[in-house]
Amino acid sequence: MDVTYREAGCWLLERDGFLILTHKRPDGDTLGCAIALCKALRAQGKTAWLLPNEDATTLFTPYLDGVLAPADFRPEHIVAVDIASQGLFPASAQEWKDKVELSIDHHPSNEHFAQYNCVEPDKAACGEIIFALVQEWGSLTAEVALPLYVAVSTDTGCFMYSNTSPNTHRVAAQLMETGIDAAGVNKRHFRTKSYVRLRLEGRIMETMELHDDGQIALASITLADMAALHAREEDAEDIAAFTGQLEGVRTAVTIRELAPGECKLSVRTGAELNASKVCALLGGGGHAAASGCTVMGSVETAKAAILGAIRQVQKNG
Amino acid sequence: MDVTYREAGCWLLERDGFLILTHKRPDGDTLGCAIALCKALRAQGKTAWLLPNEDATTLFTPYLDGVLAPADFRPEHIVAVDIASQGLFPASAQEWKDKVELSIDHHPSNEHFAQYNCVEPDKAACGEIIFALVQEWGSLTAEVALPLYVAVSTDTGCFMYSNTSPNTHRVAAQLMETGIDAAGVNKRHFRTKSYVRLRLEGRIMETMELHDDGQIALASITLADMAALHAREEDAEDIAAFTGQLEGVRTAVTIRELAPGECKLSVRTGAELNASKVCALLGGGGHAAASGCTVMGSVETAKAAILGAIRQVQKNG
Repeated sequence: MDVTYREAGCWLLERDGFLILTHKRPDGDTLGCAIALCKALRAQGKTAWLLPNEDATTLFTPYLDGVLAPADFRPEHIVAVDIASQGLFPASAQEWKDKVELSIDHHPSNEHFAQYNCVEPDKAACGEIIFALVQEWGSLTAEVALPLYVAVSTDTGCFMYSNTSPNTHRVAAQLMETGIDAAGVNKRHFRTKSYVRLRLEGRIMETMELHDDGQIALASITLADMAALHAREEDAEDIAAFTGQLEGVRTAVTIRELAPGECKLSVRTGAELNASKVCALLGGGGHAAASGCTVMGSVETAKAAILGAIRQVQKNG
Repeated sequence: MDVTYREAGCWLLERDGFLILTHKRPDGDTLGCAIALCKALRAQGKTAWLLPNEDATTLFTPYLDGVLAPADFRPEHIVAVDIASQGLFPASAQEWKDKVELSIDHHPSNEHFAQYNCVEPDKAACGEIIFALVQEWGSLTAEVALPLYVAVSTDTGCFMYSNTSPNTHRVAAQLMETGIDAAGVNKRHFRTKSYVRLRLEGRIMETMELHDDGQIALASITLADMAALHAREEDAEDIAAFTGQLEGVRTAVTIRELAPGECKLSVRTGAELNASKVCALLGGGGHAAASGCTVMGSVETAKAAILGAIRQVQKNG
C-alpha cells in the first residue's frame, strides 16, 4: 500500500521498537537517512537502531556513533530507507527482507516491496523525504540535520548533478540553519582524495587513448597499475566517472583488469550514443548513459572490442 | 556614502545610460553580476552595457553575447560590481576608476571608493546582492537568473566552500525556479577539465614530496613540465588548490618555476600554521590560510627555503 510522508510519520509515531535497514554498498543517502530517522525517532521517545551494514566504508564511521543495533536487539517494526528493491538488501538484512513494514525511498524503480511504501521519485535524495517527515515532528535538531545534509549533498554531488532541484536547495538551507558544519561535511566528502587515488588518476591520464578527435576516451587500470601504486579496491571506487570530466569527451570507457584475461568495462555516453546498446553487443547492459560489460581477454583485446561495439552502434543505431 | 540594496535599486531606476565594470582577472561572480544587472536594467527599459574586460577567459564567452559595450558608447553613469578596491580595476577600466557612482560588492575588504557603496560582506557572492535588488524590480527572468546562478555557484565552489550560507541555497532555489539549465552551468564550471590540466595534475602527483608523515606536501611545476605537456597559463590556473585535497595534508606548497632561477610559491595551511608568517620569512605575504612568495633559485632551492621557513614558524610561532 502506498502512503504519503505524513502518513508514514503518523505510522511511526504510533509504534515503537524500530530497526532501520540500509541498502548494500551503502552511500551517504541511505546511511544519512537511517541515522537521521533513528535520532528523530529517539527524540520522540522511541527505541530505534540501525542494522549494522557490513559494506559501510570508513568514510561514514564518524556519523554512526551510538546508532548501530546491539546484537541482542529484538525489533518490533522494520523500516527500510533508500532501498529500491529486495535485491539491494545487504547480507546482514536478508532475514528481514520479507518483513519490512515501512519503506521510504526516492528511486523511480522502487518495487514497493513493503507493507507501506512512501516513494517520492521527484526527490533528488531520500533525505529530502526524511527531512519533510522529521520537520512535521518538529524534531529538526542539528544532530538530525547533519546526517540529512550528508544524505542530500552526497546524492547530488554537492548540488552539482542534474537531479538537484529547488527543493534540494531549500532543504539544504533549513538544514544549515540548525548550525551544522556543512563545510566540514563538504570537505570530507567532496574535497578529500587519497594519495593513491590521485596517483591512480594520474596513471589513467598517462595511459589513456583518445579517438575521434578526442570524443572517445579509452582509459585503463591494469593489475600492474594497482600493484605498483599499492592501490586497494576503495581507491578505484567510482573511477569510471573520472574521464567523463575530460573536456570534449562524449564517450568515456574505463577498463579495469580484474584478473589476467578478464576486463570489466564501464561506458559513459552523451545523448548521441546509447551505452546500453554498446554494452549489449558484448553481453552487458545498463542505462542509456551508463552501462557496463565484461570482456575475457587482455586490456588491448577489451579496447578493440569496445571500439568495435561503439562503431557498430554509431553506424546502425 | 553607504546605501542598501533597495536604495541602490531606486538610484538605478531613476537614471539611465549605464556602463557596468568588472574586476581584473574576472571570475564568475563579477561577470555574472554585471551580465545579470545589465539584462535586468534593460528589462526596465534602460540602456546598459558591460565594459569589455580584456582578462575575461573563454570560459565565460557564452554568457557575454549582446552585453559588451560598443566602442562608441558614451555612458551617463558608471556602476562597479564585485570590485573591492580601485587597485582591482582592469586596464580597460582605468579611465573610469575615479568616476564610479555606484559600487555593489560583498568583499569585507571593500574600500568604499564609489559615490554610493552597497557592500554586504555577509553574502557569499555579490550575486546574492544583485539577486535581492533584481527581485525587488520583479525582473527575475531566466536570462537574468542564469548569470546570477553562475555568480553564486562559482563563488562558493558549487555550494561547497565555507562561505555558503542558507541564503545562498535559497537564492539558488529561486534562480532554478525560472527554468535555467543549472546542471549545464555546473557541468561547464565544475565537472570539466582540459586534457592538459589533468595531465598536469598527474605530473604534480608523480613529482610531489611529502614530509612529516604526509602532513606537508611540496608540489612543483617546472618550465620543462609545462613545455612537455604544451600547457598554457590557463591550464595551471588555481593549481595551488590541487594538493590541498590530498588526505592528511595540512600544509600544501605549490612551486611554479616562472623563469630559470625564479620560483613562485603558493602556501595553503590549516589552522595550526600561519601561511602569512611562513611567506613573510621569504619576503612574501597574504592571508593566514593562503599566502605566497617568490624565491630566486631552482625548484630545489625553493623547496629547501620554504621547508626551512615552515620549520621556523612551527618552532617560534
